[in-house]
Amino acid sequence: MRTKSFRNIVKNYKAVFFDAFGVLKNYKGLIPGIQATFEYLERKGIYYYVLTNDSSRSPEELASWYQEKGLKYITTDKILSSGMLAMEFFRTKVTNGNTIAYLGTENSAHYISSAGLKTIAVRDINMDNLEHIESFAFLDDEGFNWNDDLNKTINLLRKKNMTVIVANTDYNYPVNKNDISVAIGALADLVENIIGKNFIRFGKPDAQMFLLAYERTLKDINVKRNEILMVGDTLYTDIIGGNKFGLDTALVLSGNTLPDMANIRISSSGIIPTYVCDSAVIDI
Amino acid sequence: MRTKSFRNIVKNYKAVFFDAFGVLKNYKGLIPGIQATFEYLERKGIYYYVLTNDSSRSPEELASWYQEKGLKYITTDKILSSGMLAMEFFRTKVTNGNTIAYLGTENSAHYISSAGLKTIAVRDINMDNLEHIESFAFLDDEGFNWNDDLNKTINLLRKKNMTVIVANTDYNYPVNKNDISVAIGALADLVENIIGKNFIRFGKPDAQMFLLAYERTLKDINVKRNEILMVGDTLYTDIIGGNKFGLDTALVLSGNTLPDMANIRISSSGIIPTYVCDSAVIDI
Amino acid sequence: MRTKSFRNIVKNYKAVFFDAFGVLKNYKGLIPGIQATFEYLERKGIYYYVLTNDSSRSPEELASWYQEKGLKYITTDKILSSGMLAMEFFRTKVTNGNTIAYLGTENSAHYISSAGLKTIAVRDINMDNLEHIESFAFLDDEGFNWNDDLNKTINLLRKKNMTVIVANTDYNYPVNKNDISVAIGALADLVENIIGKNFIRFGKPDAQMFLLAYERTLKDINVKRNEILMVGDTLYTDIIGGNKFGLDTALVLSGNTLPDMANIRISSSGIIPTYVCDSAVIDI
Amino acid sequence: MRTKSFRNIVKNYKAVFFDAFGVLKNYKGLIPGIQATFEYLERKGIYYYVLTNDSSRSPEELASWYQEKGLKYITTDKILSSGMLAMEFFRTKVTNGNTIAYLGTENSAHYISSAGLKTIAVRDINMDNLEHIESFAFLDDEGFNWNDDLNKTINLLRKKNMTVIVANTDYNYPVNKNDISVAIGALADLVENIIGKNFIRFGKPDAQMFLLAYERTLKDINVKRNEILMVGDTLYTDIIGGNKFGLDTALVLSGNTLPDMANIRISSSGIIPTYVCDSAVIDI
Repeated sequence: MRTKSFRNIVKNYKAVFFDAFGVLKNYKGLIPGIQATFEYLERKGIYYYVLTNDSSRSPEELASWYQEKGLKYITTDKILSSGMLAMEFFRTKVTNGNTIAYLGTENSAHYISSAGLKTIAVRDINMDNLEHIESFAFLDDEGFNWNDDLNKTINLLRKKNMTVIVANTDYNYPVNKNDISVAIGALADLVENIIGKNFIRFGKPDAQMFLLAYERTLKDINVKRNEILMVGDTLYTDIIGGNKFGLDTALVLSGNTLPDMANIRISSSGIIPTYVCDSAVIDI
Repeated sequence: MRTKSFRNIVKNYKAVFFDAFGVLKNYKGLIPGIQATFEYLERKGIYYYVLTNDSSRSPEELASWYQEKGLKYITTDKILSSGMLAMEFFRTKVTNGNTIAYLGTENSAHYISSAGLKTIAVRDINMDNLEHIESFAFLDDEGFNWNDDLNKTINLLRKKNMTVIVANTDYNYPVNKNDISVAIGALADLVENIIGKNFIRFGKPDAQMFLLAYERTLKDINVKRNEILMVGDTLYTDIIGGNKFGLDTALVLSGNTLPDMANIRISSSGIIPTYVCDSAVIDI
Repeated sequence: MRTKSFRNIVKNYKAVFFDAFGVLKNYKGLIPGIQATFEYLERKGIYYYVLTNDSSRSPEELASWYQEKGLKYITTDKILSSGMLAMEFFRTKVTNGNTIAYLGTENSAHYISSAGLKTIAVRDINMDNLEHIESFAFLDDEGFNWNDDLNKTINLLRKKNMTVIVANTDYNYPVNKNDISVAIGALADLVENIIGKNFIRFGKPDAQMFLLAYERTLKDINVKRNEILMVGDTLYTDIIGGNKFGLDTALVLSGNTLPDMANIRISSSGIIPTYVCDSAVIDI
Repeated sequence: MRTKSFRNIVKNYKAVFFDAFGVLKNYKGLIPGIQATFEYLERKGIYYYVLTNDSSRSPEELASWYQEKGLKYITTDKILSSGMLAMEFFRTKVTNGNTIAYLGTENSAHYISSAGLKTIAVRDINMDNLEHIESFAFLDDEGFNWNDDLNKTINLLRKKNMTVIVANTDYNYPVNKNDISVAIGALADLVENIIGKNFIRFGKPDAQMFLLAYERTLKDINVKRNEILMVGDTLYTDIIGGNKFGLDTALVLSGNTLPDMANIRISSSGIIPTYVCDSAVIDI
């Protein structure tokens, strides 16, 4: 398929939203040459933000990964994650003093507890004393024993009715060139199917993720939605979500959507990006 | 189940979002006594808006229904509909001069064409000349022959890849005390399942509907999300959508959720409203 | 992909099950040259049967189509249809004297009523007198007004709880080289989703269809399942159903699965036929 | 709801199919008094069989559980399990000398390997040497580390296309009065959703399970389908499956379907048993 020059496209926008995995980085590290893109955006005065379905780490930790790799432009204030939506939800919805049960690493829960909320890992719950547990969060696929804790979660949610948050809607994520790993979104689906209840999900393609980024952008610059470009490698999250929210969209072929499959994926899915580019890299 | 007084609840909020069907009206007309609720809100200086999954009529027409019934408070500027989201989408996304194909009544399309966009009913499409047709809208279950036009829609969307909007996510709607009718959301699902593409849906419980109302509210009053009460009769649209968006929620038992089933519906669905009230009627 | 000679494969089996559409016929008529295949099977003493997801016509009518086209080998006793399963179900399950409501053509119902059962088209039902209506059948997508009769069906099935049969599981069928039409299986799904009940479905890939054919075969010849070859053009019905029932399977590329997509379809679906052949035609 | 006497019903049939869990046994052991039922059936000359969605143990082991509890009537030859269907599938479909990968206990695989087939647990697979692995079986939720082995399974099935069997379609099973546990059927769904392939499932309500029992019955007695009574506690497996296969069905309220919910479950599901009985126990 004929792709367009990312430089020629991006220059027409006031702000850019970047997906992280497959656009800025992959399993090996930073996408080679991506540094130049941000130098270009800085020079042109185009604002940029990173939208990521990630609830395993805080924005600070996500940003420090880029800092360590030498991409100094991606600072904490540039990062908008589905974990932030979950945290904000709990802050307004959970009664003071009550506790949020979770599946995930201690680190993923640390982000919530740093906002003044009490958390408890499923493994540490005493099933005879659920009084103060008011809400539940699926945070990360790591940090717990699936055999034990998924079964315990199911019986906890059958025993006590509470609001359940899934802080990352993804089903899987790549771990190396060939292999993937089950993401917490798929484990949440397993539990939801068995107990027949309705969980609240945060993350692209849901509008709330784009709204978070848009409200963040408005603090920096007065901009309309169609003056923002969403750049992503996945039709089903980045592109359909961006389209629906009223953004223009650029599909890049450096990640999930392979170059020789892009045309067939677009026509079979009916999800049509405004542009298709090889990658988000700009040669200067 | 023990319900709370709507008056005692609503007085603590700066603004209220009302679902329409089952809250303000039913198949017989206005919910008896609902007028007093708006008199109370006016007196207290509480702002109010109506959020409705309706793309069959313009806000003007929806408002005039209330006017005719004598509820003068519901004016055009108070109404936020999924049809408005669809219209806004087309206004920013459809190339100037191009045409939107639709299923629905002429009236439902009139709303789109009044915004300067060209529309064509599926029945009037010449399948050999699709050049200017750029997008597709499911607007209303009435106004077309399902046998002919659903099949024609399927073959149109197979022949030309285009963005498809479903402007009302509902599956059915009540037509009298006992009977329901298939809504356009269910017909869109039928088509989507057969052609295997991904449509864009507008309407509760999706965040974009609540965002539309929130942005409208911010023009009237500076308010945080948790200072707004969402009032609805349906757990799966009004309540879960409101909860997720960060609003407080009141389930009323005057419509879709029957009083003797409310408890079991809440516990089996896992969708927990902030309050449960008999209705939104306030006795003065 | 490298395909095998159908002649070299079929000669090793005692019986063959043929799918109809895409294998023996297409929208234009008989697959050219298919006559020779049956001459070969007759000469070799290999038994053959036709398995079809069709409830719009009786086996007699289905057979007479082949007769008219000059394929004299396909006689009524060779045909096994999902409509036969539905009819057999009603014969054992419906109380004597009671009535079966249906959606479809008069012709499709004639087949049921010829077995001594009373039928009534949805359009003719008096909703105030449902006493003798005991069961419901989705038979054909033609013969009724979808707008009126789908809504009437939904309210009928909400008003009276009864067993519902879907006599053809297909979602769509081809009407010419480019176009498809909604099949009754998809309309049944629409109704099932709205009323939330569980219908009984007959047709490939369900085991009951293969069992019907296997029991028929056993009347002609003593044969084990793995001595039978299922020949079909669709992975999701013919091939997975045949595999599961213990038959060997041959995917032919003369219908639904296009030659240049066969490899990718097999690897992405995980449905692996025993063989792949260009078609079921044998050159003699 | 008014229930019928199991004795008055069962006496009219030539054979009975019993579901195991919730009918003959529960988490505490045998259903009290069930022994008398089999004494009655023996005296009346009514044949009986047990149909169970269980692939964790061989029929021998399943039977010996009943023997140990003192119910001598349930012998190996009376038991028909979904595991038997899986084993039979592999016996006809797997090339001699090739290996079946599995998730489950060693014991569950022992049943397959005792039929002369090679098996390998997912944990023991060398991902660089998949040559002889031809098929895959989901056998039991126990016996493996879900974190490691579900991820390994996903990457195995992405790397090599093979036929996948799910030998138990159940989503969960009770472990005590209040708690349930995830069953292998739900874990298989998780994997299937992530890799997007189509697995073959064995177990009620699928016709193949009833066919296995019917063919077994025909070895003992010449009987038509409507002369057999299927007895089960679950509408979605035992009753709808039995109805569809042409059996008469009795729902018992001693397990999954609670007495005070039976009416609402039947009317909301549309799955209508021929009879409803308190239990399968006969007082003599």
